[in-house]
Amino acid sequence: MTPEQFREAGHDLIDWIADYRAGIGDGPVLAAVEPGQVASSFAPSPPSESVTMTSVLDELNDVIVPGITQVQHPMHYGWFPSNASLSSVLGDMASSGLGSLGISWESSPALTEVEQVVCDWMRQLCGLSERWSGTIHDTASTACFVALLSARERASDHAQVSGGLRDPDRPLTVYCTAQAHSSVRKAALLAGYGADNLRVVDVDPQTYAMKSDDLAAMIESDLAAGAKPACIVATVGTTGTTAIDPLAAVAAIARQHDCWLHVDAAMAGSAMLLPEQRHLFDGIEEADSLCWNPHKWMGTILDTSLYYVADPEHLIRVMSTNPSYLQSAADGKVVQYRDWGIPLGRRFRSLKLLFHLRLDGIESIRARLRRDLDNAQWLAAEIEANPEWDLVAPVPFQTVCTIHRPLGADGMPLNGEELDTHNRAWVERLNRTGNAYLTTTVVEGRWIVRVSIGVESTEREHVEALWALMQTTADETALSVRPE
Amino acid sequence: MTPEQFREAGHDLIDWIADYRAGIGDGPVLAAVEPGQVASSFAPSPPSESVTMTSVLDELNDVIVPGITQVQHPMHYGWFPSNASLSSVLGDMASSGLGSLGISWESSPALTEVEQVVCDWMRQLCGLSERWSGTIHDTASTACFVALLSARERASDHAQVSGGLRDPDRPLTVYCTAQAHSSVRKAALLAGYGADNLRVVDVDPQTYAMKSDDLAAMIESDLAAGAKPACIVATVGTTGTTAIDPLAAVAAIARQHDCWLHVDAAMAGSAMLLPEQRHLFDGIEEADSLCWNPHKWMGTILDTSLYYVADPEHLIRVMSTNPSYLQSAADGKVVQYRDWGIPLGRRFRSLKLLFHLRLDGIESIRARLRRDLDNAQWLAAEIEANPEWDLVAPVPFQTVCTIHRPLGADGMPLNGEELDTHNRAWVERLNRTGNAYLTTTVVEGRWIVRVSIGVESTEREHVEALWALMQTTADETALSVRPE
Repeated sequence: MTPEQFREAGHDLIDWIADYRAGIGDGPVLAAVEPGQVASSFAPSPPSESVTMTSVLDELNDVIVPGITQVQHPMHYGWFPSNASLSSVLGDMASSGLGSLGISWESSPALTEVEQVVCDWMRQLCGLSERWSGTIHDTASTACFVALLSARERASDHAQVSGGLRDPDRPLTVYCTAQAHSSVRKAALLAGYGADNLRVVDVDPQTYAMKSDDLAAMIESDLAAGAKPACIVATVGTTGTTAIDPLAAVAAIARQHDCWLHVDAAMAGSAMLLPEQRHLFDGIEEADSLCWNPHKWMGTILDTSLYYVADPEHLIRVMSTNPSYLQSAADGKVVQYRDWGIPLGRRFRSLKLLFHLRLDGIESIRARLRRDLDNAQWLAAEIEANPEWDLVAPVPFQTVCTIHRPLGADGMPLNGEELDTHNRAWVERLNRTGNAYLTTTVVEGRWIVRVSIGVESTEREHVEALWALMQTTADETALSVRPE
Repeated sequence: MTPEQFREAGHDLIDWIADYRAGIGDGPVLAAVEPGQVASSFAPSPPSESVTMTSVLDELNDVIVPGITQVQHPMHYGWFPSNASLSSVLGDMASSGLGSLGISWESSPALTEVEQVVCDWMRQLCGLSERWSGTIHDTASTACFVALLSARERASDHAQVSGGLRDPDRPLTVYCTAQAHSSVRKAALLAGYGADNLRVVDVDPQTYAMKSDDLAAMIESDLAAGAKPACIVATVGTTGTTAIDPLAAVAAIARQHDCWLHVDAAMAGSAMLLPEQRHLFDGIEEADSLCWNPHKWMGTILDTSLYYVADPEHLIRVMSTNPSYLQSAADGKVVQYRDWGIPLGRRFRSLKLLFHLRLDGIESIRARLRRDLDNAQWLAAEIEANPEWDLVAPVPFQTVCTIHRPLGADGMPLNGEELDTHNRAWVERLNRTGNAYLTTTVVEGRWIVRVSIGVESTEREHVEALWALMQTTADETALSVRPE
């Protein structure tokens, strides 16, 4: 495709995207397709002929869009806000258009240095101290994996450059709560610690936050048994209920035992942009690594996961390679981001953040985050005022966790498995309408409903509409199983 | 940013990209900036105000573009072709515009199923059998890491779900040549095998390909010493010289010892699109996993790394997580790509491949690859016909490896360290002009010059111009150190 053909097709695509985003609220939230339905729209054999842009846009309209659960829809309250702000989409487009290659500083000095600049700007905007050096990973899962690899190598005195993980008498142990993200367990297993050495620390039954005294006791017990505590993963804003592990207390324990502390603030990290929320992160300055995702609530399009470390030299020692075909005169004077993560080659991802900050401005981003916090407090108050609904977790951020507890056939409020079944049923019913989307999850053995507020286009009116839908749908579902 | 603001800014950006790409050959290839120069163009503190799109485009022109080594430039012959075809840029734009979230099939059925469809199309276009199931990773480094994790778990009977890597008496060993990509060593170390257990197999001194008899002998020796051979990484198209390890012979050895075989064809895999080149990949059907990057020579923009496995159930067992907040009615009926790699969340990356195939068409891509092969053969013939130049490796693909060997002060051809110094000097001199860009590398202790042909815009005239520049620059460099 020539630049002139690109110009013509590109203008068509820009209009298509603008129309798509403008009309997203008019369609259903949930993709209404059956497994295999999208795939069956394509020929089983690869195409042999080229087609026009018009034909490709038709395919987007007819096949792709109906097959997407619309996370940019103002009535999307599932999982977490996965905002893709249009200003950051422009940054992503610029990155693609430039077609720059990040394999070394020399291959694209701007790609490297803008990433340094922007990571440092974000550090300052979050009120983090100068001790942190940052980079951009694809996701928090990868960042967590890198943290656990770093912890493994610190605890084993860099066994990777000798015999690897081979001391059966002194296993390395990892600590988190059952509310930690699934990527922690995945990272611990992939990093070779072994599931037997992953400790699940108890949580407070009201707040779902890590009990630091339980952590301390577990570590003492592991030490007594000859293990070496290597890493604690603390979460600010857990996936299930946005619980906040007590960082300061956990950090003191980590320091006492020379244990790596990784802070996973993937979703809630955006709140550090608000000075009035930073007290929720007290203790974070004592950690060894931290991660948060601008591609969630803040809204710099996926994949933009910030990873900060206190000791970049250690990170580089664990992750570095220095092949001769990438050596250049600039070595030693510049940052080589290939030594800060797993992939060698990288895209110009920092442009997404640069464009987002330049075009939207930090104050408009902050205003939006505050709007979402207000909306969450409003919904939480409505739920608390309604005797048929329970608020089942604190609401420090933008997620409201609730269950509907109607009267059962015996005239008593539902409980146990019946309660789980009812709540999953009304959420499923609501989601199927396409009018809104919510997620359920298990917390301490109970199914709960998560209302994750924070899509860029979600205003108070949308949250009010959701609350009305929740009540009518839950009531209808209860009636359909309750005797007349 | 509203959709209407995006529409206006987006049209400006499309024109900017089209102009940039149309004019890329008019500027220098190498970024002419000093370390820190780009960073110093930005304020040390984050911006507090938003700015206009015009101002952002000025920043692209004034700061970013001069700081990029232009890998899309027709005179770029460094590292490897890192093509970013404009048709695939459109696919990337569509992905960004959609803002779709891949964390489960349900979050975006189309994202999952188009990836399945396109990976299968690519499999067919490469002439690979139906035994392969594919996914898209960011880079071949990550794919190699996933392969080594898979091999580790097969060899240890899934030690990750029990005690992890803890048997000091039976270390797991990994095999590759010194010509294998640096990511193999990195992956082996990160996966916990330990550098002591990474074996470097000898290469043939003419072809730089793995000597399979040396591999067999090493494995026998390791077995005798009580080790467990876990993984062999064979390369088709090594980074240095595009050498081809003998897959069929290596696969037979792997099978004999139940050793995982991963084939790294990151750069050269594009050649599988050409039926006449497939014989170079004979034996690949016996491997356990293989990776190649459409984001290199084929030109589907970074990050598009295809990873195929013969046993997806094993991959899923090693990589899976199934948190409750992602469970849905579709589980068991659909592919969950989060269980095929490290990150949980993924972009709609398959659109890059879909748009590339749809808009350019496979036959135009194949024609371009054949053009590059022809250009490489032309340059190789020129070099062979010139007594002052040596062709230092076979040319099976698009990379030509050479050295200039002028007469020294004693009237004899340069040798040893003087020869290395001379070749690095003239390449450095040529690169600094900005007129073309080449990379040097060490192969078996000698510095050589790599001419990696294959940028989308590189025609025969550009290769002819390069050859002329190589000769004059090398001669001038030789003269400047040779007595009159």
